[in-house]
Amino acid sequence: MGKTVDVKSKILAENDRLAHQIRERFSRTKTLVVNLVSSPGSGKTTLLEATAKALTPRLRMACVVGDVATERDAERLKAAGMPAYQILTGGGCHLDARLVSEALAEAHFEDVDLLFIENVGNLICPTSYDLGEDFKVALLSVTEGDDKPFKYPAIFSRAAAAVITKADLLAHVHFDLGKVREEAKTLNPDVEFMVTSALGEPGIGEWTAFLEQRMASKRAQARVGSA
Amino acid sequence: MGKTVDVKSKILAENDRLAHQIRERFSRTKTLVVNLVSSPGSGKTTLLEATAKALTPRLRMACVVGDVATERDAERLKAAGMPAYQILTGGGCHLDARLVSEALAEAHFEDVDLLFIENVGNLICPTSYDLGEDFKVALLSVTEGDDKPFKYPAIFSRAAAAVITKADLLAHVHFDLGKVREEAKTLNPDVEFMVTSALGEPGIGEWTAFLEQRMASKRAQARVGSA
Repeated sequence: MGKTVDVKSKILAENDRLAHQIRERFSRTKTLVVNLVSSPGSGKTTLLEATAKALTPRLRMACVVGDVATERDAERLKAAGMPAYQILTGGGCHLDARLVSEALAEAHFEDVDLLFIENVGNLICPTSYDLGEDFKVALLSVTEGDDKPFKYPAIFSRAAAAVITKADLLAHVHFDLGKVREEAKTLNPDVEFMVTSALGEPGIGEWTAFLEQRMASKRAQARVGSA
Repeated sequence: MGKTVDVKSKILAENDRLAHQIRERFSRTKTLVVNLVSSPGSGKTTLLEATAKALTPRLRMACVVGDVATERDAERLKAAGMPAYQILTGGGCHLDARLVSEALAEAHFEDVDLLFIENVGNLICPTSYDLGEDFKVALLSVTEGDDKPFKYPAIFSRAAAAVITKADLLAHVHFDLGKVREEAKTLNPDVEFMVTSALGEPGIGEWTAFLEQRMASKRAQARVGSA
């Protein structure tokens, strides 16, 4: 297995080099870069559609979206008013920094306040790849079951925020919010834990407030850094 | 990328060799081996709990279950009366034939009519790995959205059955069953498409009938083969 490990280290080192370039670029423009990771069907695109609706035109946003196949998600985001560029991985189970770099070069987005990277639907493989983001966000829908943080500890340990989605369906499923929060906080005491619904109550106010607070914080740090 | 491809081919060739051994073994015992693949939280374990309830003691069943972490799924299956052995992949995003072989050697299951392999929750990576199964089954819950077959074409092309789960929640979500069926049939005209709910209506009768039909067919083929 020595050869496999060597190849993997080499791939990850090259990934980190490109991720660093992406991070430098968005440090200059003070763009907050958010990498969204979840299972297929947890509601990443639906959350971003609602985010576009809530924050346009006050904030400038764009999205790079990864999928194995189809341009469906980018089309939905564009229809919601968010410039979007679809990466097709052709079977690949995660985005890497090279794919994101190439997409950004092709996309010609204007300078934006917020760049979302919607990863391929997969709770495991995207975890190890730095895409130059400010932080990762793990989404979990209430229909997926309340046992997930401990079953997928890597992403819940590394994400800055755990966003529970589809809370409007809580009345129809067994999902112990307290248990999920406790597991998420055990894996990462600093995690921002929030409960959202893009299609009903309680809405996405906590999510958009979190994004705005993180944007303000990144700008304040940039001012301190350049003072 | 030459080296990466070489390593991958070598890994897959070794996997196929072990998968062949597993297939031979269960050909002798006429055990039907079913590899369940889906996103996290689509309801693989819940379907198997209901299957245990419906078919015990008439059929002898067992399950090898893969997860990144925790023994939760095996514990649930054992509580439902199905002998189960938990494989922990420690970060690995899919089961391979080596992991399954080793688990079977450890598990010491009695001869069974039906062996389930519940794969790691991941709609992408498990697709390429033959585990010696008779066929793969792709599960999709109605809460994941009706755009999934074309977004994850590899698994829906290769699975013998597409099992829609959580149909009791259809009244609360937008999910166009006809569209999903059409996409699944486009990718694989022979796919068995069925709609189930392990916790409500319409139940899992179509699923258990499908399993029994496939078991009968495997036994009939074995008789013809040995005649």
